[in-house]
Amino acid sequence: MINACPVFALLRSRYRTVAESSAGSQIAYSSYNLLKSNVPSVSVWNGCPSHRWQSSGGHGWQKYNNDGVSKLTFALAGLMAGTGAVLAYKLHHGKLERAASSGQLLETETSSLPIYTIEEVAKHCSLDSGVWVAYKGEVFDITEFVALHPGGDKILLAAGGSLEPYWGLYAVHQQDHILQILTEYKIGVLDKESYKKQESAHPSDPYFAEPTRHPALQINSQKPFNAEPPVSILTDSYITPSAVFFKRNHLPVPRVVSETYKLEIEGLPGGAVSLTLSELKSRFPKHTVTATLQCAGNRRSDMNKVKQVKGLNWGIAAIGNATWSGARLRDVLLYYGFGPDVAAKARHVQFEGLDRDVTGTSYGASIPLNKAVSEEGDVLLAYEMNGEELPADHGYPVRVVAPGIVGARNVKWLGRIVVSDEESKSHWQQNDYKGFSPGTDWDTVDFKSAPAIQELPIQSAITHPAEGMSVDSNAGEVTVKGYAWSGGGREVLRVDVSVDGGNTWHVAKLRTSDEHNPALPPSPGRAWAWKLWEIDIPLPDKAQELQIVCKAVDSSYNVQPESSAPIWNLRGVLSNAWHRVKVKVSEDHKDN
Amino acid sequence: MINACPVFALLRSRYRTVAESSAGSQIAYSSYNLLKSNVPSVSVWNGCPSHRWQSSGGHGWQKYNNDGVSKLTFALAGLMAGTGAVLAYKLHHGKLERAASSGQLLETETSSLPIYTIEEVAKHCSLDSGVWVAYKGEVFDITEFVALHPGGDKILLAAGGSLEPYWGLYAVHQQDHILQILTEYKIGVLDKESYKKQESAHPSDPYFAEPTRHPALQINSQKPFNAEPPVSILTDSYITPSAVFFKRNHLPVPRVVSETYKLEIEGLPGGAVSLTLSELKSRFPKHTVTATLQCAGNRRSDMNKVKQVKGLNWGIAAIGNATWSGARLRDVLLYYGFGPDVAAKARHVQFEGLDRDVTGTSYGASIPLNKAVSEEGDVLLAYEMNGEELPADHGYPVRVVAPGIVGARNVKWLGRIVVSDEESKSHWQQNDYKGFSPGTDWDTVDFKSAPAIQELPIQSAITHPAEGMSVDSNAGEVTVKGYAWSGGGREVLRVDVSVDGGNTWHVAKLRTSDEHNPALPPSPGRAWAWKLWEIDIPLPDKAQELQIVCKAVDSSYNVQPESSAPIWNLRGVLSNAWHRVKVKVSEDHKDN
Repeated sequence: MINACPVFALLRSRYRTVAESSAGSQIAYSSYNLLKSNVPSVSVWNGCPSHRWQSSGGHGWQKYNNDGVSKLTFALAGLMAGTGAVLAYKLHHGKLERAASSGQLLETETSSLPIYTIEEVAKHCSLDSGVWVAYKGEVFDITEFVALHPGGDKILLAAGGSLEPYWGLYAVHQQDHILQILTEYKIGVLDKESYKKQESAHPSDPYFAEPTRHPALQINSQKPFNAEPPVSILTDSYITPSAVFFKRNHLPVPRVVSETYKLEIEGLPGGAVSLTLSELKSRFPKHTVTATLQCAGNRRSDMNKVKQVKGLNWGIAAIGNATWSGARLRDVLLYYGFGPDVAAKARHVQFEGLDRDVTGTSYGASIPLNKAVSEEGDVLLAYEMNGEELPADHGYPVRVVAPGIVGARNVKWLGRIVVSDEESKSHWQQNDYKGFSPGTDWDTVDFKSAPAIQELPIQSAITHPAEGMSVDSNAGEVTVKGYAWSGGGREVLRVDVSVDGGNTWHVAKLRTSDEHNPALPPSPGRAWAWKLWEIDIPLPDKAQELQIVCKAVDSSYNVQPESSAPIWNLRGVLSNAWHRVKVKVSEDHKDN
Repeated sequence: MINACPVFALLRSRYRTVAESSAGSQIAYSSYNLLKSNVPSVSVWNGCPSHRWQSSGGHGWQKYNNDGVSKLTFALAGLMAGTGAVLAYKLHHGKLERAASSGQLLETETSSLPIYTIEEVAKHCSLDSGVWVAYKGEVFDITEFVALHPGGDKILLAAGGSLEPYWGLYAVHQQDHILQILTEYKIGVLDKESYKKQESAHPSDPYFAEPTRHPALQINSQKPFNAEPPVSILTDSYITPSAVFFKRNHLPVPRVVSETYKLEIEGLPGGAVSLTLSELKSRFPKHTVTATLQCAGNRRSDMNKVKQVKGLNWGIAAIGNATWSGARLRDVLLYYGFGPDVAAKARHVQFEGLDRDVTGTSYGASIPLNKAVSEEGDVLLAYEMNGEELPADHGYPVRVVAPGIVGARNVKWLGRIVVSDEESKSHWQQNDYKGFSPGTDWDTVDFKSAPAIQELPIQSAITHPAEGMSVDSNAGEVTVKGYAWSGGGREVLRVDVSVDGGNTWHVAKLRTSDEHNPALPPSPGRAWAWKLWEIDIPLPDKAQELQIVCKAVDSSYNVQPESSAPIWNLRGVLSNAWHRVKVKVSEDHKDN
C-alpha cells in the first residue's frame, strides 16, 4: 500500500529535515516502498484512509511473537530509505515560549472543550483536512505545528490517530517541554468509548522484549537502551565482560528465535540467498578476532562542556574490547559468488538490522567493499562474544563486527546484507555519524558534504584516578591508568601522560593482554584491540593539585588534539581531545 | 675481507651510538659482510693491515665510471647493516670546551712538533697500537677521542690513514668546532713526501656527479643535497614540476648508466635474480599513480621554534605531488615467485639504494610486506616522474614509490630488493625516522622502543598569504591557499581555516586536480595525492592583523594537533601542528 497523501511529497520538498532526538535516537525516511508481503494486512487504530497500516511478514525476527504483538507496531509498508528527520529544538522555541507564557499545560481545565469521537479525529489526517491527533484521551489540532516538527513530516504518520505508539518508541517525547508544546494545540477531549477503544488499540510497548541488564551500567537512555559501565571498572580487565560492555541501541531490541532466523544476502550473481544460523556456523570456518568497538559519541560529554551538542551524553566508557567469533564476511561473500565481476561495480556492503522502528524501517549501515572482502579486513558475521553466544543487547544471534570501524557500522541483529554500488540509504549512514567543522551549525549543515564516518581517530582516556579523587602526598607518586585505541587497525604506539597539564610528559607502559606473556604484535594495519596503559609518575614538589592528561599516538603517528573546541561538531561525535582529570594531593587521603 | 680488528667488537658493545649529523645525514653500520666480488682487490691509501679496502664490482652503478674513480671511494667490503652512529654533540662537549679554553686551533704553531711519514701513521690503526689520523698535512693521535666520537666506532675506518675521504662525504665535519676538537689531538706533521702522496691518494669529491639544480630551490644542505621550492610556487600547480620538487638526498647522487643497470631481487623461492631496466619496462605492465611524497622532517622549522632539534631546518615545502609510472612491485614479486610460502615467513620488503657512503654502505629502508604486495598498495618501481624518465635527484633510473608512506622509504636509485622476515638493518630504518615523546631526549632515547615511521599523519599548510604580508582592508576579504595531505591513503575530507587564530573556522574548497572536471574520488584507502585548497574569508571588523590558521581532517577523522610543543621530538620529525601565518591588514598594501 503506497501512501497516497499528497502532503507527504509537499513536505518532503518544503522542509529540509535535519537534527535528531536529544536521546540520540533517530528515525527517518524519505520514500515509501511497499513490502511485498503475503500476510494479510491488518489495519489498526488509525482511521485515516490514506494511512492504513499493514503488518509485514516473512522475516524470522517477526516470528518469535506468539502473543499477537507482531500484528501491531512493527507494521507499515517498509520504509527503507532515510534522508530527513527529527529534532531541531530552536525551530519551535518560539512556540514553546508562547505556550509557557500562556500557561497552557496538560493540566489545563478541559471541561469546557468539545468532545470528539476517535472517528471524528480520524477524518483530520492531512494538511488539507487538518491534522488532529489524540493523546491520553485528549485531542489536538497540530496542523500548524507540522511545519515546525523537528522530526519532519514523520509526524503525519500519526495524523488522525494516536500519538502513543510513536512516543512509546522514543522516550525523548516524554519530557515536560514536549508536553507543553503539545498542549498549546489542544482542541478537545475524546469521548469515553473512543478513549477506551484508543487505549485498547495501542500497540504494546515496543520495548517489551528488552533483556535484563547489569545493575552496574550507567544508563544514558532507557528507551532505546544506551548505557556504559562505570569508569572505575572499565579497564579492570583487558577483555571487557559482555554484561558491562557499553550498550548502544538505536531501537528496541528485537527478540529473535535462532531456529527461524534467516540471513538474507543480495547483490551477488546468483540472486538473493538466505541462510540459517546453523548453515552460517557449519558452512564457514569460525574465526575469532579480539576487537575494540567504540561509539562515535564516546566522550561526547567533553564536547558538551564546550557548547551543547545533540546526542547522548556519553562519558569515556562507550568503548569496550571483546573477542568475537563467527564466519568471515569475506568467506560468505565469496561462497555466494562474489568475484571480479561484482567487484568491478560494487563499492559498498550494506547491512540491515532486524531492529525496526514503528514504521518498519530497519537500522542500517554500510562499509566500503574493500574492507568487507579484504583478507586483512577481518570483518566477521559474529555469533559469539567472549566465547558465548551473542547477548541480546549485542545483536543475538548474528551481528557484524567490522574491526577498526565506528560502532555504528557494526550492525547488530543482522537480517540482510546487500552488496551494492551505493552506501546504505539509512538515516544513520546518510544524516548522522558524520563529522563537521566547528563552524557548522544546524542552520548551515549539509550532511551530503561529509562522508559517513568509518575508521575512527586515535583515542585514549584516563580511567584511574577519577576526577576529584585525592592522592596521598606521602606516596610520592601517583599511578595513572587508562585505555588507548585507534581506528583502521592502526596500532597504538605510545601513550604520553602528564600530571602538570601537559607541560612535561612521561611514557606509559602498554599492555596488550591479560596474560603474562602478551601476544605477538599485530600485523601492520590489523591492530584491532585496544591497549591498556599504566604509569607511576612522581608527584611534583609541593603540588596541591594534579592536572593529569593523557594523549596517545598511533602507528600512523596521528595524535589526539589538545582540546575539544577546535574539533567541536554539532553532533558531538569524534570527541578525542586529550583526556584530563584533576585530582587533589593531600596527606590525609589514601584512596589512590 | 672481514675486518678482524678486535676494537670494533668492543666498541660496538661499549657505546650505544645514537644521534645524527646536523645536516640530517647519517651513515651507520654494525656488522661487516664480505661482498662476494670477483674483481681484484685494490688497496688504497690506508696502511693498516687490518683495514685493507677493496673495490667491489658487479653493480651497474659502478660501471658508469671510466676515469678510475670507481677504484677509490665507493670501495670497501659491503657494509650492509646499520645500528649505530653519528653525532651526539654533548658527548664531546667537555672536550670541546677544553680545546677552546686551551686555545688550540689548527693555526697553532707546529714547527716544534715531530715529523712523521704516512707509513708511520699507518702503524697506528687500532686502539691497541693507538689511533692516528692525518688531515691536511698534520697528524693527530685520536686514541682518546675514539670513545667520544659521536659517529661511533666508524672513526676507526680512518685509523692509520687520512680523514679527508670521510670528511669529504659529510659537510658536517667542515665546521670550526669540529676542527677545534681535532686540533686538541695534534701530535705532529707529515713529511712533505707523505703529504704529497696522501693528497694524490685522496679520492675525488664523492659529490662530483651531482646534477645541475633549478636555481629557485632553497638549499638546506649542499652535500648531501637537500632543498625545497619557495613556498610561493609550491601550490601553483596540482602536479609539482620535477625541477622544483623537494630534493632529499642522504648521500651523493650516484651516476647510473641505464644500459648496465641491474636490479637485484632476493628472498624469493628461485633465489637471487637480477633484471635490467629494459626487462623491468617490457616484462611488467606500466602503471601510473599520482602520489604525494613528504619528508618526515617537513615543517621541522616549526618544531625548532619550540626547542632545537637535530636535522635539516625544513620549511613547509618538503612535500610535493607527482605522477609516477613504473612496474608494480607486486607484479614483479609475483613474477619471481612470491606466494603463500613466502608470505608465511616474510614480513618486510627491504630496499637498497645505489647511493653509498665511503664505507660502501647503501642507503636502505623497508616497508611492510602487506603494503608491498597488496593490490591496493600501489607500490611502484617507478622509472618515470611526471611523464619523463626519473631525474637524477629523484632516483634515476628506478626508485620505489610507496604511496602514503614517509619519503624515506621511497628508496631512490634502487639497486636491490630483499623480501625478508626482518626490517632493513639500515641506520635510517633502525635509528632514525622514528617518533618519540616530547619528554625523550638524547640521554634517554632508545631507538628500539619505537617502530620505524611508515604512514605519515594528517598534514596541511598555508602557502598564501606569506608570513608578514599585508592584505588590503578595502578588499573586504582575504584569499587563503594551501595544501593538505594524509598518509596511508587516507583522503583529506576537510580543511578548516581561521583568520582569528582558531576562534572561528571556515571550510575551504578542496581541489584534486588541475582539470576543470576533477577525477572521481579515490577508492577508500587509496587517496595518495594531496588536495590543494583555497578560501576567501571576510576580514573581521577593524582587524589590524590576521592570525591565519589551517587544520585538516582525513578520512579517519584524524586531525592536526594545535601546537608543536606537545608533539616535539628530538629528531624534529612528524611536525604537523596547525600551520599559522600572521599578516597585516592595511589600506595601503594591495599585495594580497
